[in-house]
Formats: sequence, structure tokens, C-alpha cells
Amino acid sequence: MQVVASAHHKQHATVLQIPGCPIPCFEIPERAEAIWTALSVAQVGKVIEPQDFGVGPIQVVHAQEFLDYLQTAYPSSRPFYEGDQPAIADTYLGRGWRHKPSGFPGRIGYFAFDATCPILQGTWQAAYWSAQIAITAADLVRQGERAVYALCRPPGHHAAHDLYGGFCYLNNAAIAARWLQQGTRQRIAILDIDYHHGNGTQEIFYEDATVAYFSLHADPNFDYPFFWGGAHETGAGEGQGHNHNWPLPLGSTEEQFLAALEEAVNAIAAFSPAYLILSAGFDFMADDPVPLGGGFRVGQDGLITTARRIAKLGLPTVIVQEGGYHVEKLGGYVVSFLQNFDN
Amino acid sequence: MQVVASAHHKQHATVLQIPGCPIPCFEIPERAEAIWTALSVAQVGKVIEPQDFGVGPIQVVHAQEFLDYLQTAYPSSRPFYEGDQPAIADTYLGRGWRHKPSGFPGRIGYFAFDATCPILQGTWQAAYWSAQIAITAADLVRQGERAVYALCRPPGHHAAHDLYGGFCYLNNAAIAARWLQQGTRQRIAILDIDYHHGNGTQEIFYEDATVAYFSLHADPNFDYPFFWGGAHETGAGEGQGHNHNWPLPLGSTEEQFLAALEEAVNAIAAFSPAYLILSAGFDFMADDPVPLGGGFRVGQDGLITTARRIAKLGLPTVIVQEGGYHVEKLGGYVVSFLQNFDN
Repeated sequence: MQVVASAHHKQHATVLQIPGCPIPCFEIPERAEAIWTALSVAQVGKVIEPQDFGVGPIQVVHAQEFLDYLQTAYPSSRPFYEGDQPAIADTYLGRGWRHKPSGFPGRIGYFAFDATCPILQGTWQAAYWSAQIAITAADLVRQGERAVYALCRPPGHHAAHDLYGGFCYLNNAAIAARWLQQGTRQRIAILDIDYHHGNGTQEIFYEDATVAYFSLHADPNFDYPFFWGGAHETGAGEGQGHNHNWPLPLGSTEEQFLAALEEAVNAIAAFSPAYLILSAGFDFMADDPVPLGGGFRVGQDGLITTARRIAKLGLPTVIVQEGGYHVEKLGGYVVSFLQNFDN
Repeated sequence: MQVVASAHHKQHATVLQIPGCPIPCFEIPERAEAIWTALSVAQVGKVIEPQDFGVGPIQVVHAQEFLDYLQTAYPSSRPFYEGDQPAIADTYLGRGWRHKPSGFPGRIGYFAFDATCPILQGTWQAAYWSAQIAITAADLVRQGERAVYALCRPPGHHAAHDLYGGFCYLNNAAIAARWLQQGTRQRIAILDIDYHHGNGTQEIFYEDATVAYFSLHADPNFDYPFFWGGAHETGAGEGQGHNHNWPLPLGSTEEQFLAALEEAVNAIAAFSPAYLILSAGFDFMADDPVPLGGGFRVGQDGLITTARRIAKLGLPTVIVQEGGYHVEKLGGYVVSFLQNFDN
């Protein structure tokens, strides 16, 4: 299986304890490095650099003012931070907000919904190239590859049309979906197995009948992203019935996870998509440091079963890296997953 | 002028640098201590303890589930924090949110709109008694006093029906307003001269024709609370025309501030209220550490003029302490203001 990867991610040079950030930034360069190393050692497949498709495919998904914001947030926020401290909001629009601030620092809390997403000097570049990785992988699949793995960092599934959070800035999976469609209405399924609900992906396609979203994730009553991901969120307008959430209890067993996966896979088959995008976060594995309460209890067998069951759909698939924060184990998880997908 | 004050505020035992809080908590016990000391030394008037009017007057303004939340947030959040670290959200509901989390820690980001409002073990008690101080002061005015000063800490004007932020938890001024009304529709004017827009007070009375809100504050395009406080926010429904915002440029001069005050005072006179509540924040004074860009350029003369011009309305007035973070100068400001009001 081909792998698309780039060293650009390092420009999003986060560290675990970022000054001014109240929670640890688990989304660090070491994650992508660990995956890349493991893939090279296991020789999973040819590793290629992303092409530069430009900002056009990104503009299909994200609002221009949001893209302008991401590109200018670091320099524009310098007056409000010391040195190279990243831009992180502390004030957000509360329920019943009425005013959209034109300036900084207010604009940070307009576009961000949490404090996990520091904007560093190199963040835009890293996010831009992460999207190019996803588009490159999608383009290979569009041209006939059965499956391609996009080593995306930063991840994307929490980023919506003009909203970011959860370590995500641009929605790589959504951008890949629109690239696959090439302006047509051909059906794309996005399956999201990351531990956290991909609220960004859900929202981007919420009223769209052509891109259907299927997500297994921790119950938002008890874990991030808290404000999306309920079972009753089934789409609206044209998209009604094309959004599918399986919120699972904290500490769900491997059986519970796989049972939900079975339902999701069957629902995808019923949707009859031309392509599948797999938002592959590996924080569904037991002992990931980010989930509250220790996470789901999925082990190696469950990982393998998951890969094979999704592969059995027989769909041309773009596998987009999302979360997964156990740096020592992440590389092994990805290798194992891709090898078992590729059988 | 009588002063209502209590030592209960100390239970909200904030320190400037709170672990886990990304910005300094300027709203510290030393503020109220400095005011109390200055008032005692200057012998501004009799200092009395608040009566306990119970939670009833607070329930008139705030949602029960919000009050339940405030009372239980500290114990309920212990699993997610180390030691006695206060409860502060890092994830907030972004635009387009759909899910209301039933559990912690999600609920913090449902009710809070910023990271300035740590909930410590004693915060509820301090906020409860801060409200009782405001009610006690309002009751004295209701019974014939020309003006009474309520040394409220924590402050209140950023807290709405079921939303908190900006160092505020319960809206003391709003609670006092409803206490003055005693269930009638008699008109109450709330004048808010704090540097920051009192979004909470605005929202509580936004559709109410009987309590009108008049606010001078920094332009929310450039300073907190960012998401409320525009000039076009004039009320809705029955309350249309009864919300008045004067957003002022950062660094406004004393002349600009007093010109806006003149307009506000005239608008209050035209409203013909039975009572005036003055949300008195002193961060409009030059060199307050919280405003961005140094704040308004109001000096001692402006302070005196402000006190006298408001007093000239001749209305029975409850003066409710809001912001003001220059601890060394705050006591002097309050004394000077009250002495000039009382002339």
C-alpha cells in the first residue's frame, strides 16, 4: 500500500506542555515520526511526497475568511503573547452571543472552540501540507489504487467549515472526499473510527446527501468533543439520514466496539458509495493517554479485526491518519492496521 | 453612605497565577480587602453585614440547572483535576454545536464561555454571599436610602441566566434589580461603567422593557467580552429599544468617556426609572492592568465628574462593585467615587 507523507508536519512544532495552554498538547511531531519510522522498517509500501494541488481543494471545504484567519493568526496575535508563545483563545462565544469581533485576540475565540489548538509560526504550513497529503492519496485512489494511506499531521476531523479545535485545523478527510467527487454527486462514505467524534466532518456534510458520515466514538456526554456526537444527530435537509453516530460508553469493550463497527460497515454497504474514506484515529486502542477513563478496551485482535472488516467492504479507500497519542505504540498500530487491510 | 460587605468573598480564594488557568486571575481577594480598608480609613459610612435573603432572589434571575451546576461543579470535577486545582473548561461549544453533555467535564464548557472563571471549593459560597450583599443594599434603597454601596466580590455583570465568565458567576446587579421590582413592572435602569461590556446583564434583560441596560465599554471588536457589546444590540421583543451600548475605542480619552456618559445619563433620565443600579467597575481608569492597550485614559478628575454626573440624576441608587484590578489604587478610587456621589 502506498503511503503519502511529508516532513512539513514538523513545522507544527508543538511540545507536550505549551506555555499558555492549559492542557498538554498530545498532538506532537513525534507521533508522525513514530509512524513514518515504523512504516519504513516494516516496508509497508512506497512512501511518496505529496503533490501540491494548491489551496483550491481546501477552499471547496473551508470558508475563505477561516483560511485567511489560519494564515494570519500567528503574526496578528503577536501583540498579545510573549515571544513565540502560540495563539490560543481564552474567551469563546457563549450561548446567545451576538457580536463577531473584527480584531484580535477576539477572533481566535470566534474560530476556535477549545484550547487544544495552538497556532504556532509553522502551523498553517503544516496544516496545508497535511491536506495536500490527503488530496494526493485521494488522487491515487481516484486513479485506480485500491487503498492509500495518508500520514496526515495535524489531523483534521474536528475542523469544520470555519471552526477548529481538537488538534485539527483543516479537515483532511473532508477535503479528500470533495477531491474524489471532482464536483460530481458521486457517493462518498466517511467512516471515522477515531475515539473522538469527528464533529468537523459531521458538520461539513450534515446537509449533504452525497457524502455520508459514519462514526464510532466515545459518548459525548462524558468525553470530548462534548458538544456533538449524539445518536440523534442524523443529518438535516438533503442530508437527513446520512449522518450516523454510534456513541459508545467510556471503557467500552472490544466486543462493543466491534459490534458498533459491524453496524457501521453494513450501513456503509447499504449506502453504496463509490469510495470510502477512513478517518483512522488509533486512540480507540486501550491505554491511549488522551481518552478520559482509560479509553476503549480494544486490543491487538480488535485492531486486526477492524482492519479486515473494513477492507472486506471492497471499496477503494483513502486511509487518513487522525488521532492516536500513545507514541510508543502508534507506529506498530498503523503498520498492523495497514498490513491487515491490505490482505 | 452605607456599605454592605462580608468576609465571605475570601472563600473565592483565587491567586493571580492559578494552575491550569491560561491567564492570570486578576480577580483576587486583595481587591475587596483594599476597598474595605480604604472605606474604613476614610469612614465613608456604616459598614454592615449582608442579610441572608436565601436563594429565592437568585432563582429569579438564574436557571436552576445553572445554580445546581455552580454548587456542584467543584466536587463533580475532582476526577479531572489534580488536588485542589479549580475547575476551568478547555472545550467550549463552538458555532453549530448540537449536543448538551450531561456529565463532567463537558458541562463546564457548556456553562462557561471563557477560561477566566475558576471554580474553587469556596466559589459558590463567595458568589452566593456576593449576591446577598447586592440584595441587602437594594433592600436598604428600597426602604428609603438614597444610595448604598454593595462591596460585591466576585463581580457579576458577565454572568447571564445560565452562563458565566469574566470572573463573574452570579449577576449581582440583575439580582438587585429584580429585588427592587418585587415582582412589579416598575422601571429599573442599570448603568454599567465597567470597562468591559456587561454581557450577562444585557442578556438577562434583553427582552425586558422594565429593566433597561446602559453600558459604556471598550469596543468588543478589540477587547473582552468580544462577543457582545456592539452598538446594534438594542434589545428584542418587548425589550427593543431598552438596551443601550456605547462601545468606545481602546485608549479613549477622558473627554470621550464623559461624552458617552452624558448620553447615557440623558437616556436614563428619559427612561424615567424608579431606581438606578450602577454597575461600578473601576477598570475604566487609566492604567488598569486588565484592559488591552492600557485602557481608557480616565483620571481622577474624570472619576469625580462621573460620580457627580450620575448622582445628579437624583435617583435612589444601588452601587454594585464590578471590576477594577489595580489593587493599589482601587480603594482610593472607590472612596473618591462614593464621597463625590454622596455630595
